[in-house]
Amino acid sequence: MEASERIGLDPGEIAHAPRAVVTGTLYGVGMGPGDPDYLTLKALRVLERAPVLVHFCKRGRRGNARTIADALISDPAREFPLVYPYTTELAPDHAEYVSALAAFYDDAAARLADHLGAGRDVAILSEGDPFFYGSFMHLWRRLKDRFPVEVVPGVTGMSGCWTRAGTPITWGDDVLTVLPATLPHEALTAQLAGTDAAVIMKLGRHLPKVRRALTEAGLIARAVYVERGTMAGESVMALADKPDDIAPYFSMVLVPGEGRRP
Amino acid sequence: MEASERIGLDPGEIAHAPRAVVTGTLYGVGMGPGDPDYLTLKALRVLERAPVLVHFCKRGRRGNARTIADALISDPAREFPLVYPYTTELAPDHAEYVSALAAFYDDAAARLADHLGAGRDVAILSEGDPFFYGSFMHLWRRLKDRFPVEVVPGVTGMSGCWTRAGTPITWGDDVLTVLPATLPHEALTAQLAGTDAAVIMKLGRHLPKVRRALTEAGLIARAVYVERGTMAGESVMALADKPDDIAPYFSMVLVPGEGRRP
Repeated sequence: MEASERIGLDPGEIAHAPRAVVTGTLYGVGMGPGDPDYLTLKALRVLERAPVLVHFCKRGRRGNARTIADALISDPAREFPLVYPYTTELAPDHAEYVSALAAFYDDAAARLADHLGAGRDVAILSEGDPFFYGSFMHLWRRLKDRFPVEVVPGVTGMSGCWTRAGTPITWGDDVLTVLPATLPHEALTAQLAGTDAAVIMKLGRHLPKVRRALTEAGLIARAVYVERGTMAGESVMALADKPDDIAPYFSMVLVPGEGRRP
Repeated sequence: MEASERIGLDPGEIAHAPRAVVTGTLYGVGMGPGDPDYLTLKALRVLERAPVLVHFCKRGRRGNARTIADALISDPAREFPLVYPYTTELAPDHAEYVSALAAFYDDAAARLADHLGAGRDVAILSEGDPFFYGSFMHLWRRLKDRFPVEVVPGVTGMSGCWTRAGTPITWGDDVLTVLPATLPHEALTAQLAGTDAAVIMKLGRHLPKVRRALTEAGLIARAVYVERGTMAGESVMALADKPDDIAPYFSMVLVPGEGRRP
């Protein structure tokens, strides 16, 4: 193992270590919401030094986490993509999709284990924060008991969105509820009716249902639509002003709280 | 106005500008959860360059946002604290407390407006993310229509806590509810019973009530207590193992979700 293949160890520190195999560390690196300026200092350091860089993407696409790193990674030899098994959308609870995904994560974990076992640190680029709805978690679950792990938290996509929308999301004792738009209509409506502030993610084809739920919960007038927050092509508008129901994956609806304001 | 007093402008850019007063920009700088390595690149740049740095604190204390910046700020001449009017705890909805706080924010806003009006950028150091329960918001509200504003999002305290607890907080289509422990017992219990994952903040003296609500919602066995996450003196344990009900301000309870895991 080359000393340079492990992060945070000076060559001198291990020059005289016994020659037992030292495994690499698995890093889950929060890449933030999109703007590379919102990377953390720690994330930058791991990206600069890790000998193996991995990112998720769909077939034929680069993946957003990788795009964020464009300005930072100049050595493509040390990186490879993990390409999701499907580009078309099957329902996430469809048995065929679940088993294909499980096989994909198993295979990816095995590939990373080869590197880690050989003493090479591996950094997985994760959109937003790795432990907040991150694909990283599926590899973490498979590898955490065999290898050292370090998670680098990141600015979440939702933080990026409320920042660019120019609206505080929670004041005072506001309750905030984060909802996947994939929930059934009744569940969405009930959750929205019972909270002070909300973030609705994973909009995709669910936007018409989300509009109905917001209307029934009396929140449609407060809802803000944010598309590609902090990224190229960013768009922010009152949801009531959005003329269509086309919502890409990187879009969300915010319902800002209205709590205590001394 | 000195060119160096505004961020992001080269002296050459404004050397021949008309001598109209150019106001400074108000920056809300997310300082992240505690570990200075979790600052963003943008936050670091603003802290390095802003001619006026401001942080909130209680009388006789430094304030956590300021402590995070210890390694970064070497020129105390450009900074001053905004000291909250009370060190003892009055209920946040107590009329006397609300009016004292309002006067405090009015006065602070006036002090910052003097700097901004004279063309000096002002950076307010904000724990976590400025638009997520941040005191910054109270100054933002008073100044945003008079001066340019830029918010720099940050890693939230809760991200720092679930990172250090070593637990993903949401999987698949999990609903996440963020709850202030100040809520009444019944409301806490109902919110907890209706969600997949939860973060309970502002524990303080409310921990016994939080334990009861978690027990009644059937979640006590999953609850994780995190104190001073990512900071000196960090402590993580199962809430069931915590032998006392002493919880400082910078502590929270996490209830990790258990959603879809292919």
